[in-house]
Amino acid sequence: MTSMNISRRELGRITAAAVFSQLSPSARPQGRTIGYGIVGLGRISMQHFMPGLKASKYSRVTALVSGHRDKAEKMAAEYNVPAKSIYSYDNYDAIAENKEIDAVYIALPNNMHAEYSIRAAKAGKHVLCEKPMATTVADSQAMVDACRKANKKLMIAYRCQYEPTNLRAVQLIRDGKLGKVEAIESANGFNIRPGEWRLNGKMGGGGPLMDVGIYSLNACRYLTGEEPAELNGYSSVIDHDGRFNEVEENLSWTMKFPSGVVASCNTTYGANMPGFYRVHGSKGMLHVEPAFGYEGQHLTARIQGEPLIDEPNPNRDPSQFPPEADHLAECIFENKEPKTNGEEGLKDMKLMMALYRSCGRMG
Amino acid sequence: MTSMNISRRELGRITAAAVFSQLSPSARPQGRTIGYGIVGLGRISMQHFMPGLKASKYSRVTALVSGHRDKAEKMAAEYNVPAKSIYSYDNYDAIAENKEIDAVYIALPNNMHAEYSIRAAKAGKHVLCEKPMATTVADSQAMVDACRKANKKLMIAYRCQYEPTNLRAVQLIRDGKLGKVEAIESANGFNIRPGEWRLNGKMGGGGPLMDVGIYSLNACRYLTGEEPAELNGYSSVIDHDGRFNEVEENLSWTMKFPSGVVASCNTTYGANMPGFYRVHGSKGMLHVEPAFGYEGQHLTARIQGEPLIDEPNPNRDPSQFPPEADHLAECIFENKEPKTNGEEGLKDMKLMMALYRSCGRMG
Repeated sequence: MTSMNISRRELGRITAAAVFSQLSPSARPQGRTIGYGIVGLGRISMQHFMPGLKASKYSRVTALVSGHRDKAEKMAAEYNVPAKSIYSYDNYDAIAENKEIDAVYIALPNNMHAEYSIRAAKAGKHVLCEKPMATTVADSQAMVDACRKANKKLMIAYRCQYEPTNLRAVQLIRDGKLGKVEAIESANGFNIRPGEWRLNGKMGGGGPLMDVGIYSLNACRYLTGEEPAELNGYSSVIDHDGRFNEVEENLSWTMKFPSGVVASCNTTYGANMPGFYRVHGSKGMLHVEPAFGYEGQHLTARIQGEPLIDEPNPNRDPSQFPPEADHLAECIFENKEPKTNGEEGLKDMKLMMALYRSCGRMG
Repeated sequence: MTSMNISRRELGRITAAAVFSQLSPSARPQGRTIGYGIVGLGRISMQHFMPGLKASKYSRVTALVSGHRDKAEKMAAEYNVPAKSIYSYDNYDAIAENKEIDAVYIALPNNMHAEYSIRAAKAGKHVLCEKPMATTVADSQAMVDACRKANKKLMIAYRCQYEPTNLRAVQLIRDGKLGKVEAIESANGFNIRPGEWRLNGKMGGGGPLMDVGIYSLNACRYLTGEEPAELNGYSSVIDHDGRFNEVEENLSWTMKFPSGVVASCNTTYGANMPGFYRVHGSKGMLHVEPAFGYEGQHLTARIQGEPLIDEPNPNRDPSQFPPEADHLAECIFENKEPKTNGEEGLKDMKLMMALYRSCGRMG
């Protein structure tokens, strides 16, 4: 966790790509890059991850996997991907023969993450998989096992754990600036349009908790550096307009960590709910909002005896994606475990399933 | 609940004392005022409530009850209270013979609220009692019963339910501006100094939940207009520095209302935790912060298709106290039930006890 241990002054200088630059020079093969096969050409791939790779140091797009050949050809032209490196879901396993592909980026509906990650590992490719890593604990465990067996890296795309403002918040806490952490509030949600695959219970595996509430859950864990000892939630459906026949609309939950830190969180698909967190410590508090979006992170902190900290992050979308992609590249080059590896994703998955058990999925 | 039904334009014109002015003129005896006996000369009495009465329309200080004669004489001089109207706790029941006292304002440690409210009712006086109304459900019920039996009003000093910014938030919701309410976040807490009576389990009856978390609990109820159907909390003590031997330090809880609205709340005595709430609806959200303090309330609301609402409340402490005191005066004049009567306080008390049962008081 190199990026977690850098000093405050150093952190101020971080730019998107700089996380990677802390690699020891010897471990960084001159000019070598990691070729990513992009699996699933949806919004996050085409509008965020792939444009991000253009600004990365060690990552590039070398293949595309899509059910839409036209769309794939258009993207291939933009990213100089040869026609032979465009795959469909039918010939996906043929990526094994393509030496230009070191890793895959899985950006499919949640219920397809496990299958395509496992097939990638079997094809000898490292895996960067979007969150939530899967829709069940069993699938998540199978992903971990398959990548371990194939001796391939499995990284879950917890973007915020590579994002400077979130790292700064963690660092303030680790440096003891807030004193003892006592309590956290966090929320994240949005008003979903009808017809999105996320509203399909099988494809999403759950509702806003799996999709966006996971940011609050993950944040409470990386902010405290602890695993919740107890948790409980309530879910509900209020808008009976056809959107929430298969997944919850709202979910509110509390957690208690072993140190005694308590956290209260909200998520929704039924309302605009800006992503934020507030951490209250014995010596001060910090507030990050927006906390989880693709850009605009803004940290403020009120610390006893210190001037107000007010740090908007000027980086713009897609600046958060290069450090994420390059982190996996670093781990491949150095044969290190990704900071947000499969086990990290598995922890959230188990917690989310425990939350659903506590409240019933649909409330 | 007159004040809840006024229009937006009217609300804009509200000043501290104006809540009362909606009384029908016929019911308002010309020049008549309500004489308050102030029971307990602590911070809230001396620095907030009594100065507030100077700006009230229908309320004035006519007696003082204190264990500190010196302090009482000083305050008596300031408020033109004659020496015969200064009482100690020993001769408290003699207030019965004092016709200048219509009502008492109870601002004692929580565990004394019930006794002094009940004795006041028996002495033929109406009661305005600070929150939390007592430290047990049984005591709270006894207060309700005693006041009913004596045919005296019992009002709990839920200041925020008479405060213009909080009323404005309620009105926006009732007017449907936010669409369907889906979820609420709220918090309220502070870093308590050692030695305060609030840290005494018997006197406080509980920790931050009873003292300041009650604002969030009460707000969730008046914002939704509903009673929680389910709730659950986690409490903890982190700072083993002698302050939290008898009451919890932190408490985090969630609630689910019959409509499906979910709420997540935090309270603490171990950290600066600004009092706020956020209400997320299908058509917009509102945020009030500060929400619960003596001044500085600030409402912002983002509503679909409408310009940003950004309304800082210019009223300064002690402007929130005259409407509270005058509301009881109105109820006495018109023989109406106070908006925040004993039953309102009893509801919070039952909910807080349920929360303590769910988490154990000390976590």
